[in-house]
Amino acid sequence: MNPPLRLVIIGGVAAGASAAARARRLSESAAITLIERGPDVSFANCGLPYFVGGEISQRDALAVQTPATLKAMLALDVRTHTEAIALDRAGRRVQVRHVAAGTTEWLPYDRLLLAPGAVPLRPELPGVDDPRILTLRSLADMDRLKAAADAARRVAVIGAGFIGLELTEQLVRLGKQVTLVELTDQVLPPLDRPMTRLLQDELHRRSVELVLGDRVTAFVPGAAGGNLTCRLASGRDLPADLVVLSVGVRPETALAREAGLALGPRGHIRVNAFMQTSDPAVYAAGDAIETEDFISGDALAVPLGGPANRQGRLAADHIFRPTETKPYHGSLGTAIVRVFDAAAGLTGWTEKRLRAAGRAYRTVTVNDNHHAGYFPGAKPILLKLLWDPANGRVLGAQATGLAGVDKRLDVIATAIAGGLTIDDLAQLELAYAPPFGSAKDIVNLAGFTAGNARDGLVTPVDSLPADPSVQVLDVRPPPLVQAHPVPHPGVRNIPLAQLRGRLGELDRTRPVITVCALGKTAYFAARILAQNGFQASALTGGIRAHFDPRSPAKLPTP
Amino acid sequence: MNPPLRLVIIGGVAAGASAAARARRLSESAAITLIERGPDVSFANCGLPYFVGGEISQRDALAVQTPATLKAMLALDVRTHTEAIALDRAGRRVQVRHVAAGTTEWLPYDRLLLAPGAVPLRPELPGVDDPRILTLRSLADMDRLKAAADAARRVAVIGAGFIGLELTEQLVRLGKQVTLVELTDQVLPPLDRPMTRLLQDELHRRSVELVLGDRVTAFVPGAAGGNLTCRLASGRDLPADLVVLSVGVRPETALAREAGLALGPRGHIRVNAFMQTSDPAVYAAGDAIETEDFISGDALAVPLGGPANRQGRLAADHIFRPTETKPYHGSLGTAIVRVFDAAAGLTGWTEKRLRAAGRAYRTVTVNDNHHAGYFPGAKPILLKLLWDPANGRVLGAQATGLAGVDKRLDVIATAIAGGLTIDDLAQLELAYAPPFGSAKDIVNLAGFTAGNARDGLVTPVDSLPADPSVQVLDVRPPPLVQAHPVPHPGVRNIPLAQLRGRLGELDRTRPVITVCALGKTAYFAARILAQNGFQASALTGGIRAHFDPRSPAKLPTP
Repeated sequence: MNPPLRLVIIGGVAAGASAAARARRLSESAAITLIERGPDVSFANCGLPYFVGGEISQRDALAVQTPATLKAMLALDVRTHTEAIALDRAGRRVQVRHVAAGTTEWLPYDRLLLAPGAVPLRPELPGVDDPRILTLRSLADMDRLKAAADAARRVAVIGAGFIGLELTEQLVRLGKQVTLVELTDQVLPPLDRPMTRLLQDELHRRSVELVLGDRVTAFVPGAAGGNLTCRLASGRDLPADLVVLSVGVRPETALAREAGLALGPRGHIRVNAFMQTSDPAVYAAGDAIETEDFISGDALAVPLGGPANRQGRLAADHIFRPTETKPYHGSLGTAIVRVFDAAAGLTGWTEKRLRAAGRAYRTVTVNDNHHAGYFPGAKPILLKLLWDPANGRVLGAQATGLAGVDKRLDVIATAIAGGLTIDDLAQLELAYAPPFGSAKDIVNLAGFTAGNARDGLVTPVDSLPADPSVQVLDVRPPPLVQAHPVPHPGVRNIPLAQLRGRLGELDRTRPVITVCALGKTAYFAARILAQNGFQASALTGGIRAHFDPRSPAKLPTP
Repeated sequence: MNPPLRLVIIGGVAAGASAAARARRLSESAAITLIERGPDVSFANCGLPYFVGGEISQRDALAVQTPATLKAMLALDVRTHTEAIALDRAGRRVQVRHVAAGTTEWLPYDRLLLAPGAVPLRPELPGVDDPRILTLRSLADMDRLKAAADAARRVAVIGAGFIGLELTEQLVRLGKQVTLVELTDQVLPPLDRPMTRLLQDELHRRSVELVLGDRVTAFVPGAAGGNLTCRLASGRDLPADLVVLSVGVRPETALAREAGLALGPRGHIRVNAFMQTSDPAVYAAGDAIETEDFISGDALAVPLGGPANRQGRLAADHIFRPTETKPYHGSLGTAIVRVFDAAAGLTGWTEKRLRAAGRAYRTVTVNDNHHAGYFPGAKPILLKLLWDPANGRVLGAQATGLAGVDKRLDVIATAIAGGLTIDDLAQLELAYAPPFGSAKDIVNLAGFTAGNARDGLVTPVDSLPADPSVQVLDVRPPPLVQAHPVPHPGVRNIPLAQLRGRLGELDRTRPVITVCALGKTAYFAARILAQNGFQASALTGGIRAHFDPRSPAKLPTP
């Protein structure tokens, strides 16, 4: 019998803990050592913001496993408060330091898994070391942040990405006065800007002050006992009792770098489709690595819990069953965030990313209800679809709305994984009963609309031009036009029901852009116009997508 | 210029109305005539049960379109109260009767679309014509049923399929005492029986009396003013003030049959992938047709709103743009029903259907929460996955639970459409944040578990054998075992955390089946046993799947 395989895992949270658990299922005999610098293993790091805000009330709930349960259930050698400080690849051993005692030790391994994660960025700004400026990664960070939030009245959240938005929501839940500062001109920068309108609206409704297109240049402590001031590039001084930095993460890969493992341009550990680094005895998984982008095959880092868990599991698979392991498919970057009543997320590529890469794409934006409109509780949802004009394959999608956002992202993530086209989306046979969906789900609708655009049945436009030679035609019923006017000069109203009889009011020599609440009626109108010899296009997604994310499709019955 | 194409559509609800709308978008010049026997067009037939129960309170909401709006918006010639009575295919004309006047007329067509739908079955039983025995198809049926329900105290619903369950829920909502009679030994017969346990439990909790494995042999009117009695095959007499028949539908295809169009064995109109009948100038769509099964290519009738809408649209596409139309993919039979707090549904093939067809398959059943367990409001969900052992391709899935059922069915329906395998499911990158999902979603988990079964890492079993030579081992913590014992004689308890140290208590010469609440811990235990030389298998889906759909995974914190 072979001696038991020695597996050492550096990092005991998502990827590391998943790998350890899978490793033990695959081998009762392996000697599995889990090294964790902090006191906690396998905690629910995606849950941290919700404990800060009190939505998760039991701290224990976040400790999915403890060192004791891991030892009992998985017979692991769990070493917390232990830091990996050197890697001797030739000797197949890793040096660890016991944080409390300060002693060091070399641990031999047959296979090593690096799952060190990523650390929140702290930009090198004057005053950034002030103790009132916090980040959130560990349970200890969480406790500190919760205590500081309890004592604070005004909080500045710097960075409006996923974590910044989650923390903003939770701090408002605590009754704090929150200012959210974001470098770019939108919240949730991974999304295309028009898809963030509902989130911004929701933040405004909850009295969050949004400062977009600005950045902190220095943190200035006030007089003794006074506030901390965030000095912004715009010149504004923003006082705060507490500052939370959520401006991104960087992979913790110093150990890998010093050991000469291949890294990507931003310091991520490079791995193959089996999570092997440039040293085949050393695996890596989780927030510290870069994998292939599912669509382009380019290197992509996706520091999220889902991929980390699956990568850790896959690494363990390959260590113990190399020939039976299925290669990693690559990442889509599927992600979602809840912001009060709203949600927004993406899968695959966005328009800004496609444009930056110079890749050909087409796009449509569609509105609908998350379930049948005639069934009580129907909530709006907005879906943007991007596809490859060469073959119709779906390249990405973004969704935002008040319900059902996660479902549509999941369906489209699955569609991308299956290489489906816009025509396939049109035919998807999704589960329909009035409480759950629509006979034509918004995903079908996106497929229909994309097909119409591809086939030239409609020319979607995504803005109203200032050019006065273009006729902008609002085709909604007049009461809706009066209640929610299109904010564009010279817009004319002919409701769809009258359009065929009033074509003479329009100038056939000038292009027409049709507009409605959601984009559907505008498409209908554009079809009438196009078949009557007009050069017609339709505002994709309607007023709701472009001007008012809560613009109604019809007026309430009096 | 060609004369305008004359399109006649028989049937003005889902398929017919969708076809008419699409036809008009594609051709402003076509002469489109919509023939409807009843008074209503384009109404939301899936919403009818919810108006009966008052959950949809506005009757107008169900009239998606009216003859007047269809005329105004789509310039259709809408003829309600008009019945198609003969089809002269050689002469390309259809004879209609104006129901009120009794006059008839021949309408010429270039293309005809048959969208006559399906009619609820009324079995030929003694007394079935009693006016207190109702079915539900039209708005008029709905009004009748609602009025009758208002006056009734005891209602018998015959047939526990989708509509029967929806009506049962709504009748309970009205405070009625409902008895649900079903011929088979389970509710929701399209599903595999173990997947209906939660629905049955939910019905019991709402005081619905379930009579399974029984059927009505006669309806016996009581004495004057008395109740109607449903006489059951079991001998029982079931009194009721109102009986609702929901025992299935049959396609309304007399016109097609008389015109010599090819029909399937159960009377459905046969169509090709462009919805053309055996006469290429005659199309058909909706509940009256059979299409190909997406998986097997066999004929399949799916009388549901989603397919009907898409088929109607596709037929119109092919009439006006034949060369650009994408063929219909075939149907998966995706469907869902809400029953109070629970939901259940399916996509693709079930085990009973695979078994009946003699097709090779494998299956696993997994439990999880609909979103991260540590986040408030996590609800249980049970997912059964079926796949092809030859290539790992997903053949079908069923899900039931208290939240998130629709999402998982949609993801798997999309996976089937993309030809994905169990390994692909394991790698799906779904949208995860604690309010929406889990880092390893139950769909991933199903993929993991299926892969484990395929690879021989676990032998899932779906029942506990009576054979006393098999050791049944409950691996839950003792307090959970005491509170929720496994209903099986001779079951022994060794909690997972102690198993490695207590292997000596088990007989190595006899097989072991491990059991836990959800199936996960049992798998972990079976791995330990198998690697220690035991012949071990694990009860897939745990106690929750097999005995108690609300069995807890852990005891509440005191």
